[in-house]
Amino acid sequence: MPGEFDLIRKYFSGHDGSSRVELGIGDDCALLKLRRDESLAITTDTLNEGIHFFKDTDPYLLGYRSLLVNLSDLAAMGADPMAFTLSLSLPEATDSFLKPFAKGLFELADEEGCALIGGNTSKGPLSITISAYGVSCADTLRRSGAKSGDGIYVTGSLGLCALYVEAGYGRLKVDKSLLSSLCYKSMHQPCRCAFAKELCDLEYSRCAIDISDGIVGDLGHILECSNVGADLWLDKLPLADELHSLIKEEQKRLELAAFGGCDYELLFTLPSETEDDVMDLCEEHDVPVTKVGIITSSQELRLFNHGKIVRPAAKPFEHF
Amino acid sequence: MPGEFDLIRKYFSGHDGSSRVELGIGDDCALLKLRRDESLAITTDTLNEGIHFFKDTDPYLLGYRSLLVNLSDLAAMGADPMAFTLSLSLPEATDSFLKPFAKGLFELADEEGCALIGGNTSKGPLSITISAYGVSCADTLRRSGAKSGDGIYVTGSLGLCALYVEAGYGRLKVDKSLLSSLCYKSMHQPCRCAFAKELCDLEYSRCAIDISDGIVGDLGHILECSNVGADLWLDKLPLADELHSLIKEEQKRLELAAFGGCDYELLFTLPSETEDDVMDLCEEHDVPVTKVGIITSSQELRLFNHGKIVRPAAKPFEHF
Repeated sequence: MPGEFDLIRKYFSGHDGSSRVELGIGDDCALLKLRRDESLAITTDTLNEGIHFFKDTDPYLLGYRSLLVNLSDLAAMGADPMAFTLSLSLPEATDSFLKPFAKGLFELADEEGCALIGGNTSKGPLSITISAYGVSCADTLRRSGAKSGDGIYVTGSLGLCALYVEAGYGRLKVDKSLLSSLCYKSMHQPCRCAFAKELCDLEYSRCAIDISDGIVGDLGHILECSNVGADLWLDKLPLADELHSLIKEEQKRLELAAFGGCDYELLFTLPSETEDDVMDLCEEHDVPVTKVGIITSSQELRLFNHGKIVRPAAKPFEHF
Repeated sequence: MPGEFDLIRKYFSGHDGSSRVELGIGDDCALLKLRRDESLAITTDTLNEGIHFFKDTDPYLLGYRSLLVNLSDLAAMGADPMAFTLSLSLPEATDSFLKPFAKGLFELADEEGCALIGGNTSKGPLSITISAYGVSCADTLRRSGAKSGDGIYVTGSLGLCALYVEAGYGRLKVDKSLLSSLCYKSMHQPCRCAFAKELCDLEYSRCAIDISDGIVGDLGHILECSNVGADLWLDKLPLADELHSLIKEEQKRLELAAFGGCDYELLFTLPSETEDDVMDLCEEHDVPVTKVGIITSSQELRLFNHGKIVRPAAKPFEHF
């Protein structure tokens, strides 16, 4: 088996250039430079086999997604991706894993101008931890920025990852090719960084979070940090097409879309009178955005379906 | 079992304050500020159960060491520890693990002024990944900074971790209490950051690495990056006391000290005429430093024992 240094050279070198990277891979630390008035946004996330993805998931998708979940956190602050480190534990260092893994990883990294500046590989059960670094300007999008009267908006569509998990565990019967398509679509999500960066540049935009725990759970974090309440309109949630085609009961569809985790879409709030500007931005970036509720001063989260209050039917997703 | 957010609050909150931390735990990303002319030094390292430590190792020692191995990389650049993120995978979130783990972690973090600014916990085989951030001034200690004629110096003593691994695998017979003492001493190493920072401030000091792969392997990295050779004097290596008391054969003692990994001491080079200044620094910081060789222009690494060239008897440690 090749040594650690050979592996790094073979699969992970040559992607560490960027104007802010003073020193990339090859010393004890990497060095990053910031310009005046910039802050560094830092996030880290882990994907473990059997917990965050099924055994034998396509390594290409794992490479892509392990970076995406981190860039999604940068997007939620309106930060511009700059660099990342990779800690990869795997039972055996094979070409059949590392080649597609690196392909998926660098497809996204190169597209977003995000340089691999360091990391480590070691033997162990398959586990991928990435820490990602973004440049953040003075006014970041924060969870604490929502104000009563703001509209609540979400990018893309919801529930696809929860649907894939149902199918993966056999709770929803689908054929092999459909399962494979659900896997691909739910793991190869679009990156919202460029859109979020422009959103951040709008002077009245101050609040966002990415949807990793389900929209109800993540909206809850915004409410707690902003000390406000919200009305969330379940019937307005942008459900993934596959929810409509594969799930008959409306109740189940809503549960998956509202409480299912790992959509990695952007949830943000804006003063309602600025909606037109935002819709222009969405068109420009070809990012679908849906208004799904309103921030209130009531201190509670109320879920509505076709104008009627409903009770939550499931708890937000947690990793423990 | 408590949820992820409860765990974070219970064991890992309240250690995220520092003048350069603009935003700590609680949003999608943390935010760090740098002053003008500062760079950010970044490193990341993983400890996996059964690979980097034995099953049932005291969680207190794991907490301490998982940060130490990262701070050791910051030291090797002469960077001042500022902050870190923690990704913790564990089979079950128990008080009996998390309480001592957090104690060991924050003992070192607080001592070094290193704030915990983010991270994640998830279910999985025990695995700890930390990314650490340090402030680096214009002239960092780099692997590429060694020059022919420089003396080669090492802090502390060598071989204790390799000895503990021998004992842990039963290749060296020791009683339970001695095994426990070897475990503690080899995992609870001193942090060399403060010393390295002062070393970095000496204007003629430009080259260091930390010893994680064994002094022969790590010196090899310096030689490769600096495009020089070296004579390493094995008989001058500062062997840990326990090597003398527990290993009878000189050959075996030298192998453990020269090729054993994970000592996390600092290896650095300096123009020989500046030795007095460095020795003053060592005394001031109460850090033992030993001269163990000399950089040459020969492009090869020669190992000497009592003046005679010897051949390497083992290969440098690698994680794969």
